Amino acid sequence: MKAVVIHAAGDLRIDDVDPQVLKPTDVKVRIQAGGICGSDLHYYRHGGFGVVRLKQPMILGHEIAGAVVEVGSNVTRVSVGQRVAVNPSQPCGRCRFCAQGLQNHCLDMLFYGSAMRFPHVSGAFREELVCDQAQAVPTPEGLSVAEAAFAEPLAVCLHAVQQAGSVLGRRVLVSGSGPIGVLIAAVAHAAGAAEIVVTDVEDAPLRFAQMVGARKTLNVAKKPQEFSTYKEDKGYFDVMFEASGAGAAVLEGIEAVAPRGVLVQVGQGAEATLPMSRIVAKELQLRGAFRFHREFAEAVEFLAQRRIDVRPLLTATIQMKDAREAFDLAGDKSRSLKVQLAF
Amino acid sequence: MKAVVIHAAGDLRIDDVDPQVLKPTDVKVRIQAGGICGSDLHYYRHGGFGVVRLKQPMILGHEIAGAVVEVGSNVTRVSVGQRVAVNPSQPCGRCRFCAQGLQNHCLDMLFYGSAMRFPHVSGAFREELVCDQAQAVPTPEGLSVAEAAFAEPLAVCLHAVQQAGSVLGRRVLVSGSGPIGVLIAAVAHAAGAAEIVVTDVEDAPLRFAQMVGARKTLNVAKKPQEFSTYKEDKGYFDVMFEASGAGAAVLEGIEAVAPRGVLVQVGQGAEATLPMSRIVAKELQLRGAFRFHREFAEAVEFLAQRRIDVRPLLTATIQMKDAREAFDLAGDKSRSLKVQLAF
Amino acid sequence: MKAVVIHAAGDLRIDDVDPQVLKPTDVKVRIQAGGICGSDLHYYRHGGFGVVRLKQPMILGHEIAGAVVEVGSNVTRVSVGQRVAVNPSQPCGRCRFCAQGLQNHCLDMLFYGSAMRFPHVSGAFREELVCDQAQAVPTPEGLSVAEAAFAEPLAVCLHAVQQAGSVLGRRVLVSGSGPIGVLIAAVAHAAGAAEIVVTDVEDAPLRFAQMVGARKTLNVAKKPQEFSTYKEDKGYFDVMFEASGAGAAVLEGIEAVAPRGVLVQVGQGAEATLPMSRIVAKELQLRGAFRFHREFAEAVEFLAQRRIDVRPLLTATIQMKDAREAFDLAGDKSRSLKVQLAF
Amino acid sequence: MKAVVIHAAGDLRIDDVDPQVLKPTDVKVRIQAGGICGSDLHYYRHGGFGVVRLKQPMILGHEIAGAVVEVGSNVTRVSVGQRVAVNPSQPCGRCRFCAQGLQNHCLDMLFYGSAMRFPHVSGAFREELVCDQAQAVPTPEGLSVAEAAFAEPLAVCLHAVQQAGSVLGRRVLVSGSGPIGVLIAAVAHAAGAAEIVVTDVEDAPLRFAQMVGARKTLNVAKKPQEFSTYKEDKGYFDVMFEASGAGAAVLEGIEAVAPRGVLVQVGQGAEATLPMSRIVAKELQLRGAFRFHREFAEAVEFLAQRRIDVRPLLTATIQMKDAREAFDLAGDKSRSLKVQLAF
Repeated sequence: MKAVVIHAAGDLRIDDVDPQVLKPTDVKVRIQAGGICGSDLHYYRHGGFGVVRLKQPMILGHEIAGAVVEVGSNVTRVSVGQRVAVNPSQPCGRCRFCAQGLQNHCLDMLFYGSAMRFPHVSGAFREELVCDQAQAVPTPEGLSVAEAAFAEPLAVCLHAVQQAGSVLGRRVLVSGSGPIGVLIAAVAHAAGAAEIVVTDVEDAPLRFAQMVGARKTLNVAKKPQEFSTYKEDKGYFDVMFEASGAGAAVLEGIEAVAPRGVLVQVGQGAEATLPMSRIVAKELQLRGAFRFHREFAEAVEFLAQRRIDVRPLLTATIQMKDAREAFDLAGDKSRSLKVQLAF
Repeated sequence: MKAVVIHAAGDLRIDDVDPQVLKPTDVKVRIQAGGICGSDLHYYRHGGFGVVRLKQPMILGHEIAGAVVEVGSNVTRVSVGQRVAVNPSQPCGRCRFCAQGLQNHCLDMLFYGSAMRFPHVSGAFREELVCDQAQAVPTPEGLSVAEAAFAEPLAVCLHAVQQAGSVLGRRVLVSGSGPIGVLIAAVAHAAGAAEIVVTDVEDAPLRFAQMVGARKTLNVAKKPQEFSTYKEDKGYFDVMFEASGAGAAVLEGIEAVAPRGVLVQVGQGAEATLPMSRIVAKELQLRGAFRFHREFAEAVEFLAQRRIDVRPLLTATIQMKDAREAFDLAGDKSRSLKVQLAF
Repeated sequence: MKAVVIHAAGDLRIDDVDPQVLKPTDVKVRIQAGGICGSDLHYYRHGGFGVVRLKQPMILGHEIAGAVVEVGSNVTRVSVGQRVAVNPSQPCGRCRFCAQGLQNHCLDMLFYGSAMRFPHVSGAFREELVCDQAQAVPTPEGLSVAEAAFAEPLAVCLHAVQQAGSVLGRRVLVSGSGPIGVLIAAVAHAAGAAEIVVTDVEDAPLRFAQMVGARKTLNVAKKPQEFSTYKEDKGYFDVMFEASGAGAAVLEGIEAVAPRGVLVQVGQGAEATLPMSRIVAKELQLRGAFRFHREFAEAVEFLAQRRIDVRPLLTATIQMKDAREAFDLAGDKSRSLKVQLAF
Repeated sequence: MKAVVIHAAGDLRIDDVDPQVLKPTDVKVRIQAGGICGSDLHYYRHGGFGVVRLKQPMILGHEIAGAVVEVGSNVTRVSVGQRVAVNPSQPCGRCRFCAQGLQNHCLDMLFYGSAMRFPHVSGAFREELVCDQAQAVPTPEGLSVAEAAFAEPLAVCLHAVQQAGSVLGRRVLVSGSGPIGVLIAAVAHAAGAAEIVVTDVEDAPLRFAQMVGARKTLNVAKKPQEFSTYKEDKGYFDVMFEASGAGAAVLEGIEAVAPRGVLVQVGQGAEATLPMSRIVAKELQLRGAFRFHREFAEAVEFLAQRRIDVRPLLTATIQMKDAREAFDLAGDKSRSLKVQLAF
């Protein structure tokens, strides 16, 4: 069986890998679509991010959907032939965080295609994947497999917006118009935000934000003075979602968000040098948002209802054998938003 | 009338100032005790802090209590002879933040002894002070004027603890064992925290933390490895209050606070370079806490009931004429916690 | 000038009333559309509701929009010729609740067309209305005056949904398919609820719920057993909005909402006999929702963006002179949802 | 082995029961103290409460402490000879509520001495009890076994106070001065409530409330007019804890709690007829509080630190053989607050 394996920065290969063993509560899924995520790109370009470093070859991929081709003897929740979106997270269910309902903070998490632990956890860019039945969430007829493969990033964004509390009627700033920033804007719109402004430092990605409900998009590299009006009278926005990972975006947000406002950090940036006295004086709340738990099923539901239409956000679908080409395209913000592999 | 006036960094004088005019809803207070605050020390030592700079001579002081000696014709809430703690904040009552009940974010705030706006707002280290009756909160017999002058810093700390939500049964870390850190520890104890650990980089101030309910105090400069045990398994504390203003303390807190924990920043530090990816991965919440509003009256009530006994925290009382000596002592952590002026 | 005046239960008249005096910060609005509310109907049918009783003739009406025809000398926010939705609530701005940002709980509230205080507060079903400029919220071109007159009930519903916290991805039950229930369903849908079920005891009103995003509508008088499936395993819904005012609906909700769920009571019913031990055992939260404050401007914004399209909900527009006919129609759930007067 | 068994209303016996089997992760505890709870009394007097009815003989008791006398082969957390408080709740750890961290709503809960399910779950008023090691929480030297047996009711009260959010600086009303009401008052005091008023309809129980921090106690049967002053200006209290189970107390609370206030219902009363329009107009929040989860360990910690001193609340200790006498005394509010059995 073929799989997309990262060996080192820049060294992406299509390797033969062994099939996985099916336990009684497992299902085997024929993978049909796999979205390339920012973290996949980080492994491809830099061999990791932050303190997370590739120490052995690893199958990439965690935004996947496909069809069930085999089920274990105790499987009751899915059946052969069903199309499923696959949840790439496998919390232990026993640690103190799992017991508190905070499964995304599990002390023993296995998350597909992640080098956070060693041995690394294999990803899902492979022709066939064996997973627990609880990870395989059926999708309705009428939803394409390409759409289903958006369940994972959409779950991340639903989770991020939940961290802000209700955004109904609120003014929302999103910095960074990549796949996560655009999906957050889409979720904020679906959650009733009154006004959404999306910023980036390039023009091309901002066109996608306009498709999902942003009232205004702004290239802050070109027009910083236009952004400055949002800083008057202690700030304009109620909530900011930082999806660029750039420290400068946080600094700008601290000025543009009003006192008692919330800044949700989603982008996995490195360090940011923050003016603590401004955070104090405005009583801002800076909150991290990390992955998801119950939001995976919610994401499938949202896609099924087309509450958020992700189809315009898929800029290319490329065969697995041309994975390097796909990764290069996915990394070029001027030409693409989300790129998926077909298997 | 004499007042304590800062002219420039290091240039503190006892000047003659004009008496203030009494409006119908005003009261005149004979100031009897005035605590020296960290911001007073900043003006004295550095001529300001952050972007706040002294541009003209300014009377210092905002932690004050005394006795009412005259009341305006429409005053109904206090009477001559009553002892009062004086609230140094005067929000406008009309701006959008006042209308939301966020008076501490008033767009037109007048706060005693602050150079945040120009002309600066005169402080209250003066023999007699005229203020609105709403600012003068009567204190009960049995509470000394020295204790009453703790109302303002205690209000800051009540407000800071409120930003964390309920701390009942929680594990609390306080970094910085100055007057604010110690009072926060006292409030956290009075609010039912199960365990309070206070850290500092010197030994002397930590003895005050022990008086107010800290289970453990720790000199992290001497024993960093002892603190490290709190970082295991993603962190030990539910809540941290950062009262040192040191960026390094925030960094340590990010490691020692458990996922979904809250870090309340109270110390008015300059900049801090934060590992954003840790804040994301642990979904920490970093919240600023700034001044107070309804908590001033609550602070008087707490002092009146001696729910928090501040008497051991007052290390010296010095006559106004020796204000420079008092400021020097207040700035020496090895010898003092809170120093008050007597008028 | 003509106005719609209730004299006693069943005694609704078109009376001549005196024009109002224009103060410097006031505007005069030519009323063009006025929606008939459930409370208007209560005065018409029963002379009041609960302990609120009509003690003198009173002009009815508080869901109004029109055009500015004159402005006071100090008016800066609106100008002659602008179309406005008029906010019928006038909090005092000085009491302890206003100071907390809880203006809807003002101790000295003046609310149009309400007999809660004596003398009663005159309503706005009149040819011309004088109000403070802050009450007159401009509406954009393209929004009809009929739509603008939905701002008030929509504000009530935005406020009600805010009381539940975020409904993004949640399962929502709405009991009562009158104008408030239907608008709550619309707001819950606009706020990202994953699934909305609306119940009533008649079929006719439920068709409106289907127009605004309800996945399912259910006549619980006809099909109680179908509702029972929602009660299994401690309950199905995360949030319930009770908009019927019927105690029986609360009882059903207590069974159908899952532990830790929220029941927002909006309907102004009389008494309900509740099984307290069920509320305890499921740790349900029963929350009242009353009127609105900041949500009035948000409602205008939502209407302007057509985030909620209220046009299908307006079942009839009737001339003021035929007000009795309009009230009779508005009270007949089988034939109408919202009825407006034209002036 | 002897145990206290309820056979029917009024029919309490000391029966011989079989010893329990010890599994590898179990411990055997020699029970030394067992508090009689209100629910024990309900079984004794009425054979149950609400819809919960005794259908077979059942060992009573769930407020217990003792010494470990034997441990299973895989036990790591406790050792023979340790004194332990025993947590009587055993959630399944697998249902959807356990997975959300809401173990007190477990769909398959086993709670000692409860007839909620059939067969009933045996209680712990027995000479020796076998339980999972996770249920046996070690208590420090210096804490008596009688105090340790307060862990369970104290956990209930910690949980109840948590449902109100922070009570720091708040005005708190507690209705009902039985063991739960008094312990709630004690917890509210330990959590920093500024003022606590406890009401009852008898004088005798109120003396215990005074011991734990209530500023005022009030017999509302004797002095209803004195309570009325709390109803002025829409209400005086921020938070109410209803611990009497009497519907009349809820009605009084609805008047005495200020708008947006919280009423936590703890008492397991039957039905209450509530004025829904008052709940709406004041936007009150009525919240149920049921049992506990993480609060059991917190309760042991609070007892260990003597943050709450329960010793004055123990009015009698009676030998198991005289259980009927103990139950009769426990049911007589004029003579006792908490009665414990000795084994």
